[in-house]
Amino acid sequence: MKHFLDIAEISRESLIELLDMTANMAEINRRPVPKVPALRGKVVATVFFEDSTRTRISFDTAAKRLSADVMGFAASASSINKGESIRDTIETLEAIGVDAFVIRHKTGGVPATVTKWSDASIINAGDGANQHPTQALLDSYTIREHFGGQDLTGLRISIVGDVRHSRVARSDIQAFTKLGAAVTIVGPSTLLPSDMTGWPVEVCNEFDSVIGESDVIYMLRLQRERMNSAFVPSLDEYAQRFGLDKSRAKRMRAGSIVMHPGPMNRGVEMCVDPAEIPNSLILRQVTNGVSARMAVLFKLLGAGGIPEDEG
Amino acid sequence: MKHFLDIAEISRESLIELLDMTANMAEINRRPVPKVPALRGKVVATVFFEDSTRTRISFDTAAKRLSADVMGFAASASSINKGESIRDTIETLEAIGVDAFVIRHKTGGVPATVTKWSDASIINAGDGANQHPTQALLDSYTIREHFGGQDLTGLRISIVGDVRHSRVARSDIQAFTKLGAAVTIVGPSTLLPSDMTGWPVEVCNEFDSVIGESDVIYMLRLQRERMNSAFVPSLDEYAQRFGLDKSRAKRMRAGSIVMHPGPMNRGVEMCVDPAEIPNSLILRQVTNGVSARMAVLFKLLGAGGIPEDEG
Amino acid sequence: MKHFLDIAEISRESLIELLDMTANMAEINRRPVPKVPALRGKVVATVFFEDSTRTRISFDTAAKRLSADVMGFAASASSINKGESIRDTIETLEAIGVDAFVIRHKTGGVPATVTKWSDASIINAGDGANQHPTQALLDSYTIREHFGGQDLTGLRISIVGDVRHSRVARSDIQAFTKLGAAVTIVGPSTLLPSDMTGWPVEVCNEFDSVIGESDVIYMLRLQRERMNSAFVPSLDEYAQRFGLDKSRAKRMRAGSIVMHPGPMNRGVEMCVDPAEIPNSLILRQVTNGVSARMAVLFKLLGAGGIPEDEG
Repeated sequence: MKHFLDIAEISRESLIELLDMTANMAEINRRPVPKVPALRGKVVATVFFEDSTRTRISFDTAAKRLSADVMGFAASASSINKGESIRDTIETLEAIGVDAFVIRHKTGGVPATVTKWSDASIINAGDGANQHPTQALLDSYTIREHFGGQDLTGLRISIVGDVRHSRVARSDIQAFTKLGAAVTIVGPSTLLPSDMTGWPVEVCNEFDSVIGESDVIYMLRLQRERMNSAFVPSLDEYAQRFGLDKSRAKRMRAGSIVMHPGPMNRGVEMCVDPAEIPNSLILRQVTNGVSARMAVLFKLLGAGGIPEDEG
Repeated sequence: MKHFLDIAEISRESLIELLDMTANMAEINRRPVPKVPALRGKVVATVFFEDSTRTRISFDTAAKRLSADVMGFAASASSINKGESIRDTIETLEAIGVDAFVIRHKTGGVPATVTKWSDASIINAGDGANQHPTQALLDSYTIREHFGGQDLTGLRISIVGDVRHSRVARSDIQAFTKLGAAVTIVGPSTLLPSDMTGWPVEVCNEFDSVIGESDVIYMLRLQRERMNSAFVPSLDEYAQRFGLDKSRAKRMRAGSIVMHPGPMNRGVEMCVDPAEIPNSLILRQVTNGVSARMAVLFKLLGAGGIPEDEG
Repeated sequence: MKHFLDIAEISRESLIELLDMTANMAEINRRPVPKVPALRGKVVATVFFEDSTRTRISFDTAAKRLSADVMGFAASASSINKGESIRDTIETLEAIGVDAFVIRHKTGGVPATVTKWSDASIINAGDGANQHPTQALLDSYTIREHFGGQDLTGLRISIVGDVRHSRVARSDIQAFTKLGAAVTIVGPSTLLPSDMTGWPVEVCNEFDSVIGESDVIYMLRLQRERMNSAFVPSLDEYAQRFGLDKSRAKRMRAGSIVMHPGPMNRGVEMCVDPAEIPNSLILRQVTNGVSARMAVLFKLLGAGGIPEDEG
């Protein structure tokens, strides 16, 4: 595996292999000194054209735990503003010695395009409304860790909210269904894709009708730019119909879990404090994100098997 | 000791223990390779909601000398701006793997509040006009290093300037008096606290009357927002009455020292170049700041005794 | 050698020694783990008053490959804005523990002035239109690496474009001629220095007349602030007369090379994609930049000979 761009390109077998690798990395992260020399001397550049502190810090931590050097490149503070093209920037950074680029861009397809210009490994850290594949890996791992088993066969997962504009939803749907889950997407029709030909999902416009039937309720973030627009004319009404509140949380079935990719809009899609519902795995997702990103970095840049303890 | 928030909460004995630990760290910093593996694998996050490059870099250097990984989180560049709460940010960073948060905030009490949300160690790097406890530790250490002895018993310390708005002054007064010094605060009444009930200090409105009697003259920074306001109607008059100039420096008693927390306002409170007065310990404070912060980080996160040489 | 400020101050012998050291560093950079412990425990601060992501990242990578700790100090985000002087900033950072400052400033002479305030080593990373000595070292190395030999004797180098405002041109001319090359500068008279007394170069106003005679065509970046001004009234005309296009690239002599300090203005001075001309060494320059900066850092801060493999 050279790049990590799109869940659609990854076979079920490779996905399970990455989940197993994530489990190995999680074991490293539980050690007193959670650090291995696996990627010593490798250079990982985080190139974020769209700001995301939490995702950048997650990759940064993952790379440092594998002993790679990390180069943070905030596009806003860079030569990009002097008119340099993305291509020249990437070629320059690669010539300096970058082994892997972690790229986020507001336009879908940019990370894939970059693979044409560079011999380094490219990791898609979110491109437009297209893909966010490491999120899908950490989400799949979090579900598997909770329910056990090798994959997600037999689980019923409801993804709730702005599916139309969500790269998280696209990547998650592909990963969850590849791993055997049954996925229902839930939201007002303005926030569901206009054309869903070929999507392996069921569609539902009423949150309440899936609550009692789901093993996983996956709440999507309602992005600010959709609020007060044609997409969501009234935030109150949205919260009332599609927000997770205490009453809905109580009606969830025994053993089921709540997930969210963060950051949450409290009072919009999340109307209950996750700290008050025992079945929220939202912070667990964050912790597993580091392990999943370590797995991807090690898969792309590592050699010689699972890293040993550095002692 | 789990957190480091407020000098008021720290006993004289603990303070002396931290001063002794600072001395150990200063010894490490004089080595050819000033680095020990004491905190390998630990993650320290500097979360500064109020900008301060010098304090952030001091903590950063301290953490790296103990081999911790450092995560810089500038609040202005972060999701805080997307409406995420401080609590969600802290919980997310902790889930990623942060072991200690170094927090600066313009509102007093924020670092203490954060301890309710997190199991990580919290270090107060300055909160409003409330506390700046690592500054008090490094200042106490700098004075003890110069005058010798176990504590500051018998020393007369004058703190000059804007005591009213100064967290440095509050923390220093508590530390210096706990350690046995006699503290006088000096400034125009507009810049002294309106209610000083219980403050273990003497008060004086004339700088000239304490100069010859002080072992330590501690000059406070006049913050820009106080200038040209009701607090300081005329900068010239302020400098004339409360600035340290050559003539005042000459009248200081033999063996006495000048201190300042930085950054200095030259021509306002500092009207003499510190390089021209042999008894300025201002840069020594900066150097000792790294040792003091190493001591605090090691006290909170370390285990197994004083770190050994890695070399 | 304590500082690295100006090619004019460096003897031919020292320059050749630095080129040989650069070759050693390039060998380290080709290793599977391109990292040596030569500068463990040393602290390098990059203090950039003028933004340049690519130069800063190059120094950052160089320092990390020698195992130094790097402190990034972006002047715009710092106390400089609170009215602190450059001198106070430098003295503070040195007191924190900085061993070498890498300084870029828009005013010529600032790095040299800083040497008066600090006992640390100072590296000039570009000062106004004055000097950019590490660029000259990496350029000289790139040429020597291509053509072989101990120095550049016998080579004909044409430097094309805005020589008047270019620190790269000033440093390169001094280095190339010290190393035995014959240098011609090429450009419209508005972009050539008004007084060139003592410059060891030939001058030419027609690009086409040097193309077939040069071993090296060194294209300078046309800075945005010169465009659409008295210096360059028409970009189209500039590109036509002094841009490197396909037709000019074809007329270059066999074995000759194209160089550029980056970032390129495509369609202005570079009218051909460097990827389409086999003799472009532009990305090679970037790669060698890391080795050259490692050589300078090691020369100033290292001791005990060429670093060994850490592996």
